[in-house]
Amino acid sequence: MRIAQISPLYEAVPPRLYGGTERVVAHLCDALVELGHEVTLFASGEARTKARLAPVRDQAIRLDPSPLKSDLAAHLSQLAEVRGRAHDFDVLHFHTDMIHFPFFQDMAGRTVTTLHGRLDMMDLPEVYRRWPQFPLVSISNDQRKPLPFANWAATVHHGLDEGLYRFSPQARGYLAFLGRISPEKRPDRAIAIATRLGRPLRIAAKVDAADRVYFDEKIEPLLHNPLVEYIGEIGDAGKSEFLGGAEALLFPIDWPEPFGLVMIEAMACGTPVIAYDCGSVREVVEDGLTGFIVRDGEEAVAAAARVHTLDRAAIRRRFEERFSGHAMARRYLDLYARLRRPADAEPHAELA
Amino acid sequence: MRIAQISPLYEAVPPRLYGGTERVVAHLCDALVELGHEVTLFASGEARTKARLAPVRDQAIRLDPSPLKSDLAAHLSQLAEVRGRAHDFDVLHFHTDMIHFPFFQDMAGRTVTTLHGRLDMMDLPEVYRRWPQFPLVSISNDQRKPLPFANWAATVHHGLDEGLYRFSPQARGYLAFLGRISPEKRPDRAIAIATRLGRPLRIAAKVDAADRVYFDEKIEPLLHNPLVEYIGEIGDAGKSEFLGGAEALLFPIDWPEPFGLVMIEAMACGTPVIAYDCGSVREVVEDGLTGFIVRDGEEAVAAAARVHTLDRAAIRRRFEERFSGHAMARRYLDLYARLRRPADAEPHAELA
Repeated sequence: MRIAQISPLYEAVPPRLYGGTERVVAHLCDALVELGHEVTLFASGEARTKARLAPVRDQAIRLDPSPLKSDLAAHLSQLAEVRGRAHDFDVLHFHTDMIHFPFFQDMAGRTVTTLHGRLDMMDLPEVYRRWPQFPLVSISNDQRKPLPFANWAATVHHGLDEGLYRFSPQARGYLAFLGRISPEKRPDRAIAIATRLGRPLRIAAKVDAADRVYFDEKIEPLLHNPLVEYIGEIGDAGKSEFLGGAEALLFPIDWPEPFGLVMIEAMACGTPVIAYDCGSVREVVEDGLTGFIVRDGEEAVAAAARVHTLDRAAIRRRFEERFSGHAMARRYLDLYARLRRPADAEPHAELA
Repeated sequence: MRIAQISPLYEAVPPRLYGGTERVVAHLCDALVELGHEVTLFASGEARTKARLAPVRDQAIRLDPSPLKSDLAAHLSQLAEVRGRAHDFDVLHFHTDMIHFPFFQDMAGRTVTTLHGRLDMMDLPEVYRRWPQFPLVSISNDQRKPLPFANWAATVHHGLDEGLYRFSPQARGYLAFLGRISPEKRPDRAIAIATRLGRPLRIAAKVDAADRVYFDEKIEPLLHNPLVEYIGEIGDAGKSEFLGGAEALLFPIDWPEPFGLVMIEAMACGTPVIAYDCGSVREVVEDGLTGFIVRDGEEAVAAAARVHTLDRAAIRRRFEERFSGHAMARRYLDLYARLRRPADAEPHAELA
């Protein structure tokens, strides 16, 4: 199949450090190519990919030191480029929220749009009501809740290349927290859990400008705790080591997490996940097999105390079965085929 | 003429406090109605206007306390609404940068797009190359410099309703600074000028979140100067009083100001403007008549020392002649008529 993948232009594909959407796009492209498809990736120029790259900006927007940039203009140019070549592809797969809707109305039937973010935002329902013809993919069933009426075509959980993270049969005696330092991710809860257990906690995290005040006021004072080690932002190379050495990943979130990539990154290393029951968690963590799902600090502490009873090899196996790049790519290929079938029978994109 | 005015949704039309684009849209709508035209304003619901209001969001985005909003989704819904009613209008006048381009390609010939912001940004040239069919209006000739190749149809300087600000024949012994506290606006220069003259300076200004660090580190320490009085953000009602009482408005900018509304607000009160020679300044200030154009602090101090020699009534007169709402509306009407003429002769919007 000839497939166009249209990535946001914010981070490199894959990102050098933190960044979810562009990471998933990277792994999806590689897996689709490995499965024998012709894939063209519309992304910024520094992408590393097995697909054919159609570069639409020299550098990802967040990596570009220019002080004066326009996100909107960059994405509009990208979409104009995709539009000009639309007839070279069987499927156009967008990862750019809804910005492409006005451009591709007349061919919505052969597009797929994966929504990567939270959907409980004002202004969104009206957009998805106005453009009901675009088939949408949720990255968890839970993510759909605020927009039950939308044109959902499938849920496709994220996947990552099996070779990216090394299985680690043995942990090295600490708990891990990995992500953004933000009120939704609740690093304070992770610190409280480790403190109650008297176990070391390592925090590998990014602080966005938007979360600077939260970090300075709420989290920085907690880092003086001798059990806590804060190591800043790490890339893929450091994650195997960091996650693989952990007895468990703490994921004490307090928001409707649309997917939560770090959970499957931990599982790829064989590391169990102790996650608060929010958003996608029930769809990703299998309670008692790949981790524990908890409702409060009490349960989290109890879970961390018995996390060594879980089989790290079995956790890695479940990652491979459910969350490898190929598993994700196969689910998308099923969807692409489903969309094409009616289109092959009779051209009715206009009906959409 | 049946005219649609499409405003950004960030601020109320007109804004309660600071905010340029929505203020100009408000005055343009009222003036066009006063001149006998049928105007429909697509804007957020709290707009106060003489036009027919087509409300597209209950509240302006920046006034809406919801923590989770989508600027992009709000504007896409607005544009879909405009698109659905496009045939009710002779002219569609957009104030929304370039976001409408993909929607209105097939009728670009009867659109007008006023660009309100700075144009020396990465990513912009490509967009204006890809959509050359949209007639563009610059708000100063200087603003065009980074995009000389774009499809410029006119420069239309901003205007404001003549009744909004009261002429003040007499100043009350202080210099004024009004605007955002930001490195481009250089409030520090204003303070230095007042200090060298030993004259009181009143600062009425807004501090955006993005400029908080600049305010705290660079400006706040300067406010302890006994000559300086910082009065925070003021609305239209307070501006007559504030600007009208000033011996001069100091406008010591350090960036390519696309227009600089505050200069004509001062002139409406009869208050001369001492402005650094940047961006639009030479097009707005008439040196020796409505103010002085200066190149450095030395010249600014000299100008402030002789500003009382200017005739405040003459300044107000020049405002009325050049920068009233009606003056602006007439220039836009000329342009609308110019665009319609070929369209009336033969329908060739598709050629655009």
